Order: sequence, then C-alpha cells, then structure tokens
Amino acid sequence: MTNVFPPALSELIIALQCLPGVGPKSAQRSAFQLLERDRGGAQRLSQALAQAVSLLGHCPRCRMFSETGNICQICADPRRDATALVIVENPADIVAIENATDYRGMYFVLMGHLSPLDGIGPGQLGAQQLESRLDEAIKEVIIATGATIEGEATAHWVGEMARRHHGVHVTRIAHGVPVGGDLDYVDGTTLARAFSGRREIF
Amino acid sequence: MTNVFPPALSELIIALQCLPGVGPKSAQRSAFQLLERDRGGAQRLSQALAQAVSLLGHCPRCRMFSETGNICQICADPRRDATALVIVENPADIVAIENATDYRGMYFVLMGHLSPLDGIGPGQLGAQQLESRLDEAIKEVIIATGATIEGEATAHWVGEMARRHHGVHVTRIAHGVPVGGDLDYVDGTTLARAFSGRREIF
Repeated sequence: MTNVFPPALSELIIALQCLPGVGPKSAQRSAFQLLERDRGGAQRLSQALAQAVSLLGHCPRCRMFSETGNICQICADPRRDATALVIVENPADIVAIENATDYRGMYFVLMGHLSPLDGIGPGQLGAQQLESRLDEAIKEVIIATGATIEGEATAHWVGEMARRHHGVHVTRIAHGVPVGGDLDYVDGTTLARAFSGRREIF
Repeated sequence: MTNVFPPALSELIIALQCLPGVGPKSAQRSAFQLLERDRGGAQRLSQALAQAVSLLGHCPRCRMFSETGNICQICADPRRDATALVIVENPADIVAIENATDYRGMYFVLMGHLSPLDGIGPGQLGAQQLESRLDEAIKEVIIATGATIEGEATAHWVGEMARRHHGVHVTRIAHGVPVGGDLDYVDGTTLARAFSGRREIF
C-alpha cells in the first residue's frame, strides 16, 4: 500500500487500533475527524490516557480500579456494610448495581471469569485476595457474575470456596423473566430457569 | 449516577467520547480494556495524539495533512505529472486512488463537500487555494467527489469554476455497475446512470 500520509498521521492511525473494535478503516476515520474537527478533544484524550496509565492501579482490597497504592472509594467508606460482599466480573457491574439497587455493602471484582482456554484460572481472578477477604467478618457473599456458561462456572467456584472453606452464607442473584418481558418472547432456557426458580407469594 | 470510579478513570471515559461513534458504554469498555490489558498501547496512543496535534497541519498546495509549514509528500514529488489535478473530498480518497489506479498526478483535497445546511460553502472547501492551483499549468481536472447528492453538487461547482473561469479540461470519474456486480442486484439509479453513460466498444 502506498503511504501518502506524513509519519505522525500513520503513527496515530496505527496507535488508534489498540482500542477494542477499531480496525484500519475506522482508525483512519477517527484520526481525520480528530485532526480536522476536534484537536482540543485529541489533546484532552492524550492527557487523560497518560494520566490514567500513570495514576491508576487496582484497589488492594477489591481489585476495582483506584489510584495506585490507595484503596478505592467504596472500600474506604466507613458507612458501608462490611459484612456483605458482592462478587462481580467487571468494574462496570459495580456501577450497574449501585445505580439499580440500594445495596450499600462491599464488592470484589474478579476482572474476568474462569476461562481455561484463555489461560484465565483462579490465580488470574485474584483467588488469594478473595480468600483473605472471606476470612474477614463477611456474613453473606452475593454472587453477581454473568448468566453465561463462564459466569456460572465462576459462580460455582466462588460459591464453593466461600461456603466450604470459610463457612460464609452464599447467595446468587436471581435469573428469570426480565421485568417488562412477555413470556412468549423469552428464550426457553431463561423461562425454564424462571420456572424452576419460582417463589411462593401467598 | 453514582460515581464509583477514581477521577482519572472518569476523565478518561469522558475524553474517549471525542472519537466518532464512541458513546458512554463503549468509552467505558475501551478504558477498561486499555487499563487492564494494553497499557503500552494506551501510552503509545497518548504520545501519537500529542505528536499529531502538535506536528500536523495542512499542505498549503493541496490541503492534504502534512507537517505544519511543509508541502506534502505528493506535492513535493518532482516525478509527478503537474498538469493533472484530481479533486477529492477526503485524504482517504487519495489513498484509495493511489492504490487502485496508476494515476501519478497531483491532488486537491476539499476536506468535505458543499453542505449549506452545515454552513459548508466554497470558502470552507478551500475555493481560493483551488483557484490559485487552477491558474498554474493544469491541463485536466479530474473530479472524484462522491456519487452522493452533495458530491454531485460539489462536482458541479468545481467543474464550472475550472471550465468557465480557467478554461481547463474537466472530467468526472465514471459511475455505473461495479465490477463483479450482477445487473439485477444493482440499484435503479446506478443502472440508469450506467445506461445513459454507455460507451461504444466496436
């Protein structure tokens, strides 16, 4: 391919491809857009990236992103209930739970799910840190990993560890028909789980 | 929305939204991905952005991106035919033409197309620079703007200017059935243009 771009532009187009879902075409489009219409945004992004890389690490208690060496906002909050621990796969799940529920306990972020083929086992998911958390005054572990095969396998591993080795009460968030969902539009697996997980109401 | 992220992470998520097609959700996903799996890529992107913003401007002859103050690689190349000028909408179009054809003349990049509703008129498309280019020893202007309504309007404006005011020979790239295209899968407008633009072959 003939390269008619100046080196700084070619380098930018290659560098943009580190973003998930961005290939050569959309990287090119993004580069043109930034240079042509939003140089302020490009400058701000450059600084935000440099700052995030140098400042951010993981909270030593819950593995959430936090400024390196510091525990995160949630772990540091004394008003939170330190006896409940929600296990999630990603930091984004914490945001979802905080916004949708009135849960105000602690979290532990696995940063992924068990996936032996990708080389992700308990060690990569912070098993040691989690075990030492479970040794604290935790009364209930609420497992909120995804409703996927990997999420279920991960839930099983965490649940067994918490129950067997630490004697903690373990719960799993409910799976079933989404609120607002018509029964005949729900897939069979979900409906079967909703059925087998039915609760007495009277 | 409860903000449970450290400030550097929130700032990165906001800054990523300057990229075209990136909203809050995908910005969050990109930020996590970079911090979790590709800090080297993030650092490189940060530097590439800073460098591109500080180094890149437009070629004073053809409006292509080039290092500020310098004319671009193509305009500076003495082996190129300085009597032919292709008019394109975007820098990416130059790459496409260079790769697909054996054209080795000059280019002029409009950096957009006429779009009065968005406030883009001849002034924004470099009319003055284009006029001074046409005063040089140009023998043929090849208009390669898009086959859209705006592209056609732009082609009309450029063509008229070149022909009437500068007496230059003006051509337009052909529109018709794409190579490999089955006739009954081609849309009606394209087929009509292919039909009216038919050429004698014997």
